[in-house]
Amino acid sequence: MYYVGIDVGGTNLKAGVVDENGHIIAKVDCPTKVERGHEAVVADMAKLALRAIEKSGVSMDEVKSVGIGIPGILDPRTGIVPFCTNLGWHNVPLIELMRKDIDKPIYVDNDATVATLAENVAGVSAGAKSSVFLTLGTGVGGGVVIDGKVYSGAHGVGSELGHMIVVIDGEECTCGNKGCWERYAIATALIRMGTEAAKAHPESVLNEAKSISAKTVVDAAKAGDKAAMEVFDRYTYYLAVGIVNIINFIDPEIIAIGGGVSAAGDFLIQPVREKLAKLVFYKTMPYARVELATLGNDAGIIGAAMLGK
Amino acid sequence: MYYVGIDVGGTNLKAGVVDENGHIIAKVDCPTKVERGHEAVVADMAKLALRAIEKSGVSMDEVKSVGIGIPGILDPRTGIVPFCTNLGWHNVPLIELMRKDIDKPIYVDNDATVATLAENVAGVSAGAKSSVFLTLGTGVGGGVVIDGKVYSGAHGVGSELGHMIVVIDGEECTCGNKGCWERYAIATALIRMGTEAAKAHPESVLNEAKSISAKTVVDAAKAGDKAAMEVFDRYTYYLAVGIVNIINFIDPEIIAIGGGVSAAGDFLIQPVREKLAKLVFYKTMPYARVELATLGNDAGIIGAAMLGK
Repeated sequence: MYYVGIDVGGTNLKAGVVDENGHIIAKVDCPTKVERGHEAVVADMAKLALRAIEKSGVSMDEVKSVGIGIPGILDPRTGIVPFCTNLGWHNVPLIELMRKDIDKPIYVDNDATVATLAENVAGVSAGAKSSVFLTLGTGVGGGVVIDGKVYSGAHGVGSELGHMIVVIDGEECTCGNKGCWERYAIATALIRMGTEAAKAHPESVLNEAKSISAKTVVDAAKAGDKAAMEVFDRYTYYLAVGIVNIINFIDPEIIAIGGGVSAAGDFLIQPVREKLAKLVFYKTMPYARVELATLGNDAGIIGAAMLGK
Repeated sequence: MYYVGIDVGGTNLKAGVVDENGHIIAKVDCPTKVERGHEAVVADMAKLALRAIEKSGVSMDEVKSVGIGIPGILDPRTGIVPFCTNLGWHNVPLIELMRKDIDKPIYVDNDATVATLAENVAGVSAGAKSSVFLTLGTGVGGGVVIDGKVYSGAHGVGSELGHMIVVIDGEECTCGNKGCWERYAIATALIRMGTEAAKAHPESVLNEAKSISAKTVVDAAKAGDKAAMEVFDRYTYYLAVGIVNIINFIDPEIIAIGGGVSAAGDFLIQPVREKLAKLVFYKTMPYARVELATLGNDAGIIGAAMLGK
């Protein structure tokens, strides 16, 4: 059997046909054009799914289900999407609308949860009984696998790992709370700290950049710039603190790191691992491996598809 | 069938015989006398288990297993207890030593995990598919139930909820890290904040106490003392922050609060609930109920017994 996955982003919609092993056999995409309102976007999602099936050469009978990853949550009691901030959606009856065009079982879950499932089926956490997936980008998303299955919690409101408070009374977060991990662990945190460091250290190469991006800071740290190295050291400490909180809580087999910031690769992961070794509660016991995610942008399609497996 | 539970504390050892429903039908205890070393203590644990069985009138054939709750962890790979700080134990082959005297399956788990299991079988979380138990005492212990079973993690190092970092660079913790939730959520935190408040507010009734205990602060806050009320408000905020981190992570059905501090009852739980309503990420979605644990000191015996069920 085959599974269709739809990855709903603020900029693009992507759909793909995926086999039992989580391999994409065909994919298509189109712009989301959020401003048209949810009905037009959902209609395009259905069309995109049908186009992906056509492109794959798979017959409709061989398609078991359609899965959708959204940058929000589904209320499992009603099948309605209460919020999708990036899409401007509010109380959208997503499953009902999709059923107008698609006569297959339809599954919906959060995009980070879906990426977690993808890594657990076909990526770095494949085969792990328990894992946590973190995506470090414009926000910190996350997903939790327990007993080999994505764990969605009792009310569908969990896995908001970016909103774990790590600095009581700390930086203001978009969610209305203060000191959320996200404020310290996303690309913007590197930019904020890099900009402050540039001002404080006129000799730093950070001052040579037109505008400071996360990559500016990472590159300057790699090149041995002292101010940038200090920023990066602090940033990896923030990352390690959130990760040790995860370990101290549910002690997964593996923690996979994806998202834009993870492009820094071993330069990012290695210092996080070193800091973790000092932060874990039981210093001589084994604990979760921390690894880079491997599926990149395809995780959205693969994971959405695998919701129906 | 019946199940023996042994609750190993720094001051007392307790053992009981428990039925299928988690009800204690006989219990006995004796002083731990830690200073004698682990061999004498473990020998007493075995004797105490046999005395409990004798007292219960249950025949040895009707006893299915012996479970032990320890203030530490068991390495599931080796059956050895690597650390038990309160007992001064280091690399104690607990299961092997118990087997010398007891010819039954023996199970060992952390005392907070065991209390979690007890509440989930016979206490406030009975029947919940997912729950978290928090014990607020001299430390913050915790346990996690997922899919109706106590979740021990991949390496046995999880459920250390008290050591979730909530204030990066905050108060020094006994574990070597800074800003652990425990530092802000235990009885000692109330004493620390109460003592500071007494100094800052000479008019406060807190200054009338010979020495300030957690109860002094709670009683003064109940009586309407402004300084004590501020301390208690801050304390319940710290509690709510840790609890919202739990909700944002694994979204359990119920969070049960036990331990010494929970004796403050509704006066404690009510403000925590009010603060949670403001802290949760999805303001209009349902989330975990926060309730007082109901089994008190018996949770240790009941939960240890239920390890074998």
